[in-house]
Amino acid sequence: MYKIYGDLYSGNCYKIKLLTTLLDIEHEWIPVDIMAGETHTDEFILKNPVGKIPLLELDDGQYLSESNAILNYLAEGSHYLPADRLQRARVLQWQFFEQYSHEPYIATSRYIIKYLGAPEEKQEELAAKKAGGIKALGVMETQLAQTPFLAGQKYTIADISLYAYTHVAHEGGFALDDFPHIQAWMERMEAHPDHITMAQAIAG
Amino acid sequence: MYKIYGDLYSGNCYKIKLLTTLLDIEHEWIPVDIMAGETHTDEFILKNPVGKIPLLELDDGQYLSESNAILNYLAEGSHYLPADRLQRARVLQWQFFEQYSHEPYIATSRYIIKYLGAPEEKQEELAAKKAGGIKALGVMETQLAQTPFLAGQKYTIADISLYAYTHVAHEGGFALDDFPHIQAWMERMEAHPDHITMAQAIAG
Repeated sequence: MYKIYGDLYSGNCYKIKLLTTLLDIEHEWIPVDIMAGETHTDEFILKNPVGKIPLLELDDGQYLSESNAILNYLAEGSHYLPADRLQRARVLQWQFFEQYSHEPYIATSRYIIKYLGAPEEKQEELAAKKAGGIKALGVMETQLAQTPFLAGQKYTIADISLYAYTHVAHEGGFALDDFPHIQAWMERMEAHPDHITMAQAIAG
Repeated sequence: MYKIYGDLYSGNCYKIKLLTTLLDIEHEWIPVDIMAGETHTDEFILKNPVGKIPLLELDDGQYLSESNAILNYLAEGSHYLPADRLQRARVLQWQFFEQYSHEPYIATSRYIIKYLGAPEEKQEELAAKKAGGIKALGVMETQLAQTPFLAGQKYTIADISLYAYTHVAHEGGFALDDFPHIQAWMERMEAHPDHITMAQAIAG
């Protein structure tokens, strides 16, 4: 059985929880408290030298890190990861976009506000992240005005990757009022009978 | 025939040039000058709303962005992208590591030094990026002490992704003297008869 090391307050970890719920993948969830420094203990660094969660442990004791790599691994063979070559690359395009152009602005703003309490000395950094976050949402809005899901006609792990921090973007100071197609896309995802939000995942 | 929009001074674009050289993939290289703002013209934003290169244009006029997604697309079916499920996920793990934990430190430091001329007002940012870059190199060193290539026994696109900015890391102020396994790994890659460095790619 898979072991998944994670912290449900982290959108990157929540991604894995959402996919395992949708695909009903049996696993043991091992809570790791980022704020308490548990990703930087000697024991954890042996598991993942990058010192980050989520982390997947396979039956044979091998580890796989990086949330989007784990999603690709777990979704293989399911309808959340298409077999077609261009479609697969399109899923990856959105996942790399998420990690480079979305997460560093929207997730980091949320971290500063929700977990650090938006201290005075972080206000400049917070302001600097505003434009990047709005730009990322604009890129998503442009795509979602054309197709119901990010990689095209079907719900894929690309949607899970971008939904994770977008559905809690308000906690980072990003209102979605100006992004109606993003709102409609989130509603499409939330209509799945097995969908859980981050708040629901935390509540168990 | 593929069209590839790129700027060879960018490591992200160079990745694509290296793979197309190794696999002898016929393509038209369309130079786009980042420093001259050519990724932000209205015409280019229609091609890629994120405003970034490299960008791949397929025969049917579709576009694919994000350097690592393009590598996955072009390497499909070749020995640079294994068929095995865990191996593929391992390749992705390193590529996501590259974009989140390596590029923002090492490539950005290089950009500040080489292209912006390390101005006074960027010194603080540059100093702040030092620890992250050294940490990223340390993670690579740990892996390369165990396996000849990042994803294991074989040369994959994960190596291309990390080599791109690592082989010019000195231009960002990062010496590799303390990372003998990274040096040996680069020599293994450079031993390929069709290998080209970024400088060779620029020289044509």
